[in-house]
Amino acid sequence: MYLVTDTGQCGGPAGVVETARQAADGGVDAVQVRDPHATTRELVALATAVREALAGTGVPLIINDRVDVALAVGADGVHLGQRDLDPVTARALFGPDVHIGLSISDERELTEALGLPAGTVDLLGVGPVRDTPSKTDAAPAVGFDGLAAICRRSPVPCVAIGGIKGDDLAAVRAAGAVGAAVISAICGRPDPTAAARALSRGWAAAVPDATGSAR
Amino acid sequence: MYLVTDTGQCGGPAGVVETARQAADGGVDAVQVRDPHATTRELVALATAVREALAGTGVPLIINDRVDVALAVGADGVHLGQRDLDPVTARALFGPDVHIGLSISDERELTEALGLPAGTVDLLGVGPVRDTPSKTDAAPAVGFDGLAAICRRSPVPCVAIGGIKGDDLAAVRAAGAVGAAVISAICGRPDPTAAARALSRGWAAAVPDATGSAR
Repeated sequence: MYLVTDTGQCGGPAGVVETARQAADGGVDAVQVRDPHATTRELVALATAVREALAGTGVPLIINDRVDVALAVGADGVHLGQRDLDPVTARALFGPDVHIGLSISDERELTEALGLPAGTVDLLGVGPVRDTPSKTDAAPAVGFDGLAAICRRSPVPCVAIGGIKGDDLAAVRAAGAVGAAVISAICGRPDPTAAARALSRGWAAAVPDATGSAR
Repeated sequence: MYLVTDTGQCGGPAGVVETARQAADGGVDAVQVRDPHATTRELVALATAVREALAGTGVPLIINDRVDVALAVGADGVHLGQRDLDPVTARALFGPDVHIGLSISDERELTEALGLPAGTVDLLGVGPVRDTPSKTDAAPAVGFDGLAAICRRSPVPCVAIGGIKGDDLAAVRAAGAVGAAVISAICGRPDPTAAARALSRGWAAAVPDATGSAR
């Protein structure tokens, strides 16, 4: 389970930090700080505070879009969209040890991603699986069948994103994704720890059987 | 003379590139690409095109705010505002050879800038000298007296910015600034080369005399 933060849904920067801390307590495997409305300095401050909240938890900190901010705060990785810095340049700036994720929303973008030099991208974020209110400029939903088709073609691990709820986790796993990213399913929930725990347990329980369909 | 580009005033990205090329022909000493509305990928594309337009001219390319974009395109420098990445972190990411400018708009920000480790910042952008329509979130105008007071206190060279017109250049030089940055005085002008040439000549002619007032 991969938490992507939304500053508005978390009630502000302090809410993002607290949500990240609670989600880590609840068992999420990674936290991505995303705030396209923040100034650079605000985003550095936010990412620094989240890094401190995650210290010692083993949960990696990923920064959305901003390679400079990821470098400035010593993040574990960056997640790039199609409008962000291109992954080859990002890899050159980071070197081999920083995690680079890339969002793709259709087969064409997958084909483009698969054409990148080996080792450029560590993870693909595939979506939106469902239409979602968290990202108003998102591409059309790929659905679970679209997700499965992309996962089948991709040698790079895929994480599903976009409107994922607890009830979807079996379908996400059955589609072949290695994980699910959520915003609304944790951010702004009355008890983010409990929400994260329920999702993490739901994910662990949704082991696909040998036929590829979820139990 | 220091051109700061405004994509809207230039009529779009192609207009920015053409304006930069013509301004270099007209004698500007530096070009800063500024587009806070562009996506990262758009800004990289724009900066790359401007870099190509300036190749061989000797005119350095400076990127506003975005250290990642400056690194990605191999820019000569970055110009940071008070809401951008802090200069110490930027210097650490760039090493010693990349030019770093910093915007300040009052004596308090000057004091803060003067407290930075030596060699952090190469240039201060001081302003707005006049109120300007190009930057709607700007601080109150410092005026020419405010500019002079800041230049007197600063061991780091200062460039004036904000509503500077050809008629102001003598006052800017008399205030002790090493240069003047302009947006509207070049961007969107019918003949940017002629506008840049007039400004460059105006600057050269505005040599302060020994008493410190402009000739």
